[in-house]
Order: sequence, then C-alpha cells, then structure tokens
Amino acid sequence: MDLRQLFATNLRRVRHSRRISQEQLAHDAGIDRAYVSRVERATTYVGLEIIGKLAAVLDVEPAEFFQKPVKRTAKR
Amino acid sequence: MDLRQLFATNLRRVRHSRRISQEQLAHDAGIDRAYVSRVERATTYVGLEIIGKLAAVLDVEPAEFFQKPVKRTAKR
Repeated sequence: MDLRQLFATNLRRVRHSRRISQEQLAHDAGIDRAYVSRVERATTYVGLEIIGKLAAVLDVEPAEFFQKPVKRTAKR
Repeated sequence: MDLRQLFATNLRRVRHSRRISQEQLAHDAGIDRAYVSRVERATTYVGLEIIGKLAAVLDVEPAEFFQKPVKRTAKR
C-alpha cells in the first residue's frame, strides 16, 4: 500500500473516531481545508510539520497514522 | 519533543542498527546525502515520499520512525 494511502486511511479513521469534519480539523490545525482533503484522498505527500499538527488536534501519537490496517478475517 | 527531533533520533538509531552510513542510505534511497544529514539534524520537515524510501531501504515500518524514546530508568 502506498504510504499516502496508508496515511489517508488512518487519518480518516482517526478523524471519524473523533467525530470531527475535515473543515473542523483543518481549522483547528491551522491548515487549508482543501489540503486536508488532498491528504485524505492520498494525492499529496504530507510532511512532518502537518503530521505533527494533525496528531496534536486529533490527540494521537503520529505513529497512529502509520499503523497497518488490520486484516479482517472473512466470516464463515 | 519536536517531531523533527523524534524522527531524526529514530532514523539515526535504525541506520546505526543496520550499520550503514548516511552516504550509503542516501545512495540506496536515491536521495541527496546532504538532505539525509539535514533530516538527521532535525532541520527539515521530511515528507511521506522520503519517509517511505528511507523505511524501504532500512527495511522497517514507517511507524518505527515515530516511536517515542524509551525512558531509561536511573540505575541505583
């Protein structure tokens, strides 16, 4: 999985778990909303500065954005 | 700890554990050596593209670069 995709998937998962919109996240992190949207669509290579801001707003460790998705075993 | 410092500390730790020089890492990752040096001196905000290349060459998960340093308890 491309690292942009891994990051995007985790960012969306964490943001949803906090029940905040892209708009709110962008505002609280002091980032352009369109940029947050590009990050979540895995179309940009986000840097450490933004990663740090996103982690702070979402109150997670930056490593959380790099967790491998847990493979769901097929239900029999 | 600033995220650049956390990343730098972990990158240097992993690189040393693999016993490779900044020069070798830069060459294998296809990155400018001076840039690797700036990343290890925490003077630049590295992006996902480079993070992915460094992780691939060092054969670690990108999350490894974001691990919090283990606090060493003082020996009594």
